[in-house]
Amino acid sequence: MHGYTQNKDDYLKRLRRIEGQVRGIAKMVDEDKYCIDILTQISAATRALQSVGLGLLEEHMGTCVIDAARAGAEEADTKVKEAADAIARLVRS
Amino acid sequence: MHGYTQNKDDYLKRLRRIEGQVRGIAKMVDEDKYCIDILTQISAATRALQSVGLGLLEEHMGTCVIDAARAGAEEADTKVKEAADAIARLVRS
Amino acid sequence: MHGYTQNKDDYLKRLRRIEGQVRGIAKMVDEDKYCIDILTQISAATRALQSVGLGLLEEHMGTCVIDAARAGAEEADTKVKEAADAIARLVRS
Amino acid sequence: MHGYTQNKDDYLKRLRRIEGQVRGIAKMVDEDKYCIDILTQISAATRALQSVGLGLLEEHMGTCVIDAARAGAEEADTKVKEAADAIARLVRS
Repeated sequence: MHGYTQNKDDYLKRLRRIEGQVRGIAKMVDEDKYCIDILTQISAATRALQSVGLGLLEEHMGTCVIDAARAGAEEADTKVKEAADAIARLVRS
Repeated sequence: MHGYTQNKDDYLKRLRRIEGQVRGIAKMVDEDKYCIDILTQISAATRALQSVGLGLLEEHMGTCVIDAARAGAEEADTKVKEAADAIARLVRS
Repeated sequence: MHGYTQNKDDYLKRLRRIEGQVRGIAKMVDEDKYCIDILTQISAATRALQSVGLGLLEEHMGTCVIDAARAGAEEADTKVKEAADAIARLVRS
Repeated sequence: MHGYTQNKDDYLKRLRRIEGQVRGIAKMVDEDKYCIDILTQISAATRALQSVGLGLLEEHMGTCVIDAARAGAEEADTKVKEAADAIARLVRS
């Protein structure tokens, strides 16, 4: 059980849609569509993917990090460090 | 014919791989994998998608924008404005 | 007292350096330096600023969020929501 | 003379404002302001800095890259490659 488990269906639906967006981008490339239109779709898919990431992260903080905080100082430190590293990767990607 | 046409196969291969990454992320969510591991995959897919966008953009500038520059001032202005807007969307997504 | 208080001097030093970087960028513009070199400095200053943000965020999570988690469910929810919103702003800027 | 020269005063004004924002952030840290409020200012300054970068880039493309396109294929290639690298740094910062 994780923070996102209760919203699993919503995340799965969003990820299927992003998968479809990426497939659509490949189709645009294959059909020699105009570059700028492809870039617009790439920005949209990127944003959708980051939005899923931000949602998962919020639920992770609201469950795992909070639970760790209650479990003890060391557990809390580990989880905060881990979450901070994941956030840095999101910010820099 | 567009700037990316000659590298089409490479772009298609990369986009198929990203599609697979997104499907893999959905599978991780479905199997209740650890949130931070899912976020790592999301950052990787985001980066791969932006990298495709940056490649397409470079080829677009090297062909369409350059051709427009040679066609005339007005064509050049239009294409530069359009490319700049696409870049802004990439930077902000 | 906040999470970052014990590292205040380090943050202040980094922010003074970023302030100097921005002043240097203005000087480059004023002296008609080459655009691409200015952009390189802008990327460096942006990255330095985000890095300060990521550091503050990690310390915020390690103190305020953790303290809230121990104080009660409602406090925890509020702080997690607030941190998640701040992260979303960082990711999208 | 560069693409941005005619808008130099505008860029200088914006950069002075960003410099003031960064100084304001240092002041907030020095006065132990609330972390999330500092992060909000960091996101705003980051966005303002990227916005200056996007403006400079658009003007660079509209002048240097366009001029290079008219000067010859090799010059065009060099300038497009250089601009694409600068864009990649902006996108990834």
